[in-house]
Amino acid sequence: MSERNRGMPVVGMVGGGQLARMTHQAAIGLGVGLRVMAAAADDSAALVCADARLGDYRSLDDLQVFARGIDVLTFDHEHVPNRHLRTLEAAGVAVRPGPAALRHAQDKIAMRSRLTEIGAPSPRWCKVADLADVSALAERTGWPVVLKAARGGYDGKGVWLCGTPEEARAVIERAAAENVPLLAEERVEFRREVAALVARSPHGQGAAYPLVETAQRDGICHEVIAPAPGLDLDRAAEAQRLALDIAAELGVVGLLAVELFETAEGMVVNELAMRPHNSGHWTIEGANTSQFEQHLRAVLDLPLGSPQVTAPVVVMANLLGGADPDVYGRYVHVMAKDPTVKVHLYGKSVRPGRKIGHVTALGEDLDDVLGRARDAAAYLKGPAR
Amino acid sequence: MSERNRGMPVVGMVGGGQLARMTHQAAIGLGVGLRVMAAAADDSAALVCADARLGDYRSLDDLQVFARGIDVLTFDHEHVPNRHLRTLEAAGVAVRPGPAALRHAQDKIAMRSRLTEIGAPSPRWCKVADLADVSALAERTGWPVVLKAARGGYDGKGVWLCGTPEEARAVIERAAAENVPLLAEERVEFRREVAALVARSPHGQGAAYPLVETAQRDGICHEVIAPAPGLDLDRAAEAQRLALDIAAELGVVGLLAVELFETAEGMVVNELAMRPHNSGHWTIEGANTSQFEQHLRAVLDLPLGSPQVTAPVVVMANLLGGADPDVYGRYVHVMAKDPTVKVHLYGKSVRPGRKIGHVTALGEDLDDVLGRARDAAAYLKGPAR
Repeated sequence: MSERNRGMPVVGMVGGGQLARMTHQAAIGLGVGLRVMAAAADDSAALVCADARLGDYRSLDDLQVFARGIDVLTFDHEHVPNRHLRTLEAAGVAVRPGPAALRHAQDKIAMRSRLTEIGAPSPRWCKVADLADVSALAERTGWPVVLKAARGGYDGKGVWLCGTPEEARAVIERAAAENVPLLAEERVEFRREVAALVARSPHGQGAAYPLVETAQRDGICHEVIAPAPGLDLDRAAEAQRLALDIAAELGVVGLLAVELFETAEGMVVNELAMRPHNSGHWTIEGANTSQFEQHLRAVLDLPLGSPQVTAPVVVMANLLGGADPDVYGRYVHVMAKDPTVKVHLYGKSVRPGRKIGHVTALGEDLDDVLGRARDAAAYLKGPAR
Repeated sequence: MSERNRGMPVVGMVGGGQLARMTHQAAIGLGVGLRVMAAAADDSAALVCADARLGDYRSLDDLQVFARGIDVLTFDHEHVPNRHLRTLEAAGVAVRPGPAALRHAQDKIAMRSRLTEIGAPSPRWCKVADLADVSALAERTGWPVVLKAARGGYDGKGVWLCGTPEEARAVIERAAAENVPLLAEERVEFRREVAALVARSPHGQGAAYPLVETAQRDGICHEVIAPAPGLDLDRAAEAQRLALDIAAELGVVGLLAVELFETAEGMVVNELAMRPHNSGHWTIEGANTSQFEQHLRAVLDLPLGSPQVTAPVVVMANLLGGADPDVYGRYVHVMAKDPTVKVHLYGKSVRPGRKIGHVTALGEDLDDVLGRARDAAAYLKGPAR
């Protein structure tokens, strides 16, 4: 253990984005050390973390240097090459989640194969070598069909809704040219999207946050309501159980976010993420233990904290950059209008559509809380022009 | 405004202790920059803050260098020489609280004189040139009398309870030899100690947290209960009003903690502090806006956040170092026993009696919450041996 941190362990997090930034807030409270590997000195987390190191997450050398003197290696994104993590693990680094688990958040074909094996409710799907694969799926499901890049996609990137074989052929040809493996999934008719966030520790303790409703816009998480309004209690418990089961089956250590479609027949798994997740930012104020503290506790094999909520309704709304970069000028008005709304800014330069922060509102009444969160987010974004 | 922080202001805080450390957590959330002046690289805040600078708070040169490029200068302790702050203010640095206000937290004679002027309820007191002054006071109040160093005391240091003229003479002689100005105060018969924490912004907005009960042991804050149990509502409101009035009269910007004695006749002012205060640590989880966020909002002249509580009862217990330095080993058990208790560690090396962290428990029932906070603090301290 690091001498510098006085008998407390040091967690190394690869990635210097807002997830690492908010994890740093939690690490300060817990008194554990956080070392961040950032790509640039002005990355969101590097601006605030005393122990930020620059490095390239694609470089094994950089990862090896970074891992020296840390107790646990973890991640704020899933882009670190799995083979590097296997090398680090073989050399004795505690990689959490480990490469065998993380693979299922890095490769959608691995994820779908494994979920099918364990019987988790999934859309019908297939690997795509050529158009015949897609057409065979569409014969069972009908068009449109969703094509996805197996690796590298996020926030709606790498996902194509194809209404016809011609559209699918164009995607397949482009992917082949770029050497991107594809899978195809049926388009699920859902009522809404929800997310189940759970934590799992190395010796198998689990903790489940309440299910939340997530609203996406253009493939980006836009708003989260906790707990998901009007959700049948049995169905909610079943989805929490499903997420805990997936975490156990896959051997996840740390957080697992399971993005789900709620359909007339039940829940269907959409995506997995093994890290703090946008759908869990509400926990900073809205739960006894924030997802960031929970992730640290889990990867350090500390007993997990209580996921209980602190208010009947919590709403988180993402702040996306608008046309006017002067967020601070608008800050004042939002704070003056609503002294209870919590504004989080990530230290990022403002570009239209970029996630630059989020706001959280808490209260008793859904419409009231939703209205306050939306007002604050819209005002902070500023005029569209 | 600093280019590095992307249009967001930078607050400079002199002092690298746990108050600066916890202020950094709040600054990360708000997205404002925090620069800390620490005495050593392993100061509590310097361990976690990306923009920590080393410097001596007694050196005008160091303060001037530190103040370059910051928007507001503030403090995690009251030891910066007032004359330096006047020089900085004259040079255009926004010093908050300003030296004219801060003087009353630096010099107990200035504090008592001003509070007497504005009619705030105070113990009978006098400046002490020689024993005759103390004896004259004691003729009115009886012995014992409390002698205090006008400057430099904290956590019970610089306070002497004198039962006889002989004891007072010994203190006066020692103080004269060290050139320390003294004052004498009547010993107030109090039922308990309470604290009123308020914030005030440059254009005069005020916010008051609920009154809390503070338990001291050996002059060190030991435990805080929010809100103060069984306190008459009128008396609580009166004390909040008193603290807001003192903040306005003294021109405080930022936080003002007013330590009070609750007596049979009402409240009596004991001490003032103009910074985040140990009696306000409970607000991190227990209030909509933590005292650290509130201090930043106040010194930046942002609208203040809501001080409303998040639970009916909140208890904060300080963690003092014990004989065994392995706090982390005991951490696991505390977390396993109570998944809802929040542990805060300050990154300090463990020395017996040193404040190394605190725990916070929240709930509905006073005995339950108090018991959980005490259990966690006692367990983390470890065996006395």
